[in-house]
Amino acid sequence: MRLATVTTLRGTSAAVETDDGWRALPAPDLSALLARGGAWQPGEVLAEATPTLPLPRPGKVICCGLNYGDHIAETGRDMPAYPTLFAKHADTLLADGQDIRLPAGLQVDWEAELAVVVGRELRRASEDEARAAVAGYTVANDISVRDWQRRTPQWFQGKNWDATTPLGPVVVTPDEADPQAGLDVLCRVNGVERQRGSTRTLVFPSAALLAYASTFTVLRPGDIVLTGTPGGVGMGMTPPLYLRDGDVVETEIPGIGTLTNTLRLA
Amino acid sequence: MRLATVTTLRGTSAAVETDDGWRALPAPDLSALLARGGAWQPGEVLAEATPTLPLPRPGKVICCGLNYGDHIAETGRDMPAYPTLFAKHADTLLADGQDIRLPAGLQVDWEAELAVVVGRELRRASEDEARAAVAGYTVANDISVRDWQRRTPQWFQGKNWDATTPLGPVVVTPDEADPQAGLDVLCRVNGVERQRGSTRTLVFPSAALLAYASTFTVLRPGDIVLTGTPGGVGMGMTPPLYLRDGDVVETEIPGIGTLTNTLRLA
Repeated sequence: MRLATVTTLRGTSAAVETDDGWRALPAPDLSALLARGGAWQPGEVLAEATPTLPLPRPGKVICCGLNYGDHIAETGRDMPAYPTLFAKHADTLLADGQDIRLPAGLQVDWEAELAVVVGRELRRASEDEARAAVAGYTVANDISVRDWQRRTPQWFQGKNWDATTPLGPVVVTPDEADPQAGLDVLCRVNGVERQRGSTRTLVFPSAALLAYASTFTVLRPGDIVLTGTPGGVGMGMTPPLYLRDGDVVETEIPGIGTLTNTLRLA
Repeated sequence: MRLATVTTLRGTSAAVETDDGWRALPAPDLSALLARGGAWQPGEVLAEATPTLPLPRPGKVICCGLNYGDHIAETGRDMPAYPTLFAKHADTLLADGQDIRLPAGLQVDWEAELAVVVGRELRRASEDEARAAVAGYTVANDISVRDWQRRTPQWFQGKNWDATTPLGPVVVTPDEADPQAGLDVLCRVNGVERQRGSTRTLVFPSAALLAYASTFTVLRPGDIVLTGTPGGVGMGMTPPLYLRDGDVVETEIPGIGTLTNTLRLA
């Protein structure tokens, strides 16, 4: 199934894609649908429905850095023994089609990623329990302000600019997307492919990340885990290449969808 | 004024301390009171009122590491040019008097801190605007799991164990507490003083931290900024000293209050 939060003429709605188009689910968005839990049936067909930010209010957005061998190599680091985790605020999230707005003069870089959406509460879960608790998968771009990321030992301030992390456009349920079998993760800038990796090669697979994080913090329905980015980021190039005003960033996982966001520096 | 979230026989209430005791404010807790904004008058005297976690649902908890010269020295780092920020989830917070429960075998350390509570929305604020937007100050202990903190380059997983960050017991408004003039920040373990610093010596004063963070992320009423810990943490001792099962951690800022929490390892 393909789930989304869609905008309609009457506001937003959680929705499921059917042969007839988007049909309403009983919540204003997927954050609310997952939080209420329980089963649901598709409702009325929604006219003029367009997917927007699927999860507007995650309680937690936990990110893993250094999770693809080629990206670890381009950062000059050793293969990690544990997942390198950090947090994003929900305010960082941005819908497909919206502009990434940042002040001019920053070193803005791309990081295409698979995002895992939690469907059931997880505490000290095993990998099997974590895998069974996944609500679905979506696409994210952990757009990073490299100069701020490097100002201090902690990456937080380079990763937490409001409304700079595209997420969506839809959430695909696990019966239709399997990161262990391999999902391609791509980033194109102005049509030029800059990143292409497969989740099959993740150092810490997505279920392992959920299980690991649940050792110390409860994960709840609607929480999001970003699984890291493959090689090919701008800071890894010689010389480094950063995004410029007007650049179009496309982030794609075939089988899930594509995010298209334009950078606006001002 | 001294504000709190108190437990009563009828649930929790935001409250203000008066000569008659705790009087009700029109919200179930301080998170809700600050979110609703506007003026209020003290209501009825609350019988059997006891302060509990003052801010149960902050949208953001932003922490600054490396913000006192003696603590920077004991970590072996250079004086920072920018605030070292990282995030905590709201789930980390713990009330005065509650046990800090963690699995046995972890390196658990103390970090007494002044916490600043945001009272008005801040976006790209100046230091003066940030100072004027402070709702009050409270006490925190950024209890840290050092072995997990050091597993990767990012401290997040050592700082985000659920229900391990004591906060409270009350929030004191800025007319009664001035970190620039100097508030003492103390930690005692089993009655032995381990930390004593003054917020007068902060490398990045509290208003500067709010202004800096508001450059990239909006701060809203009820959000919390932890301002860093002075020298004297356990990992800085030779040999390092970590907390043991049954240890009593007292975290005090005279003029605000004292948190007393016992470590339970199991």
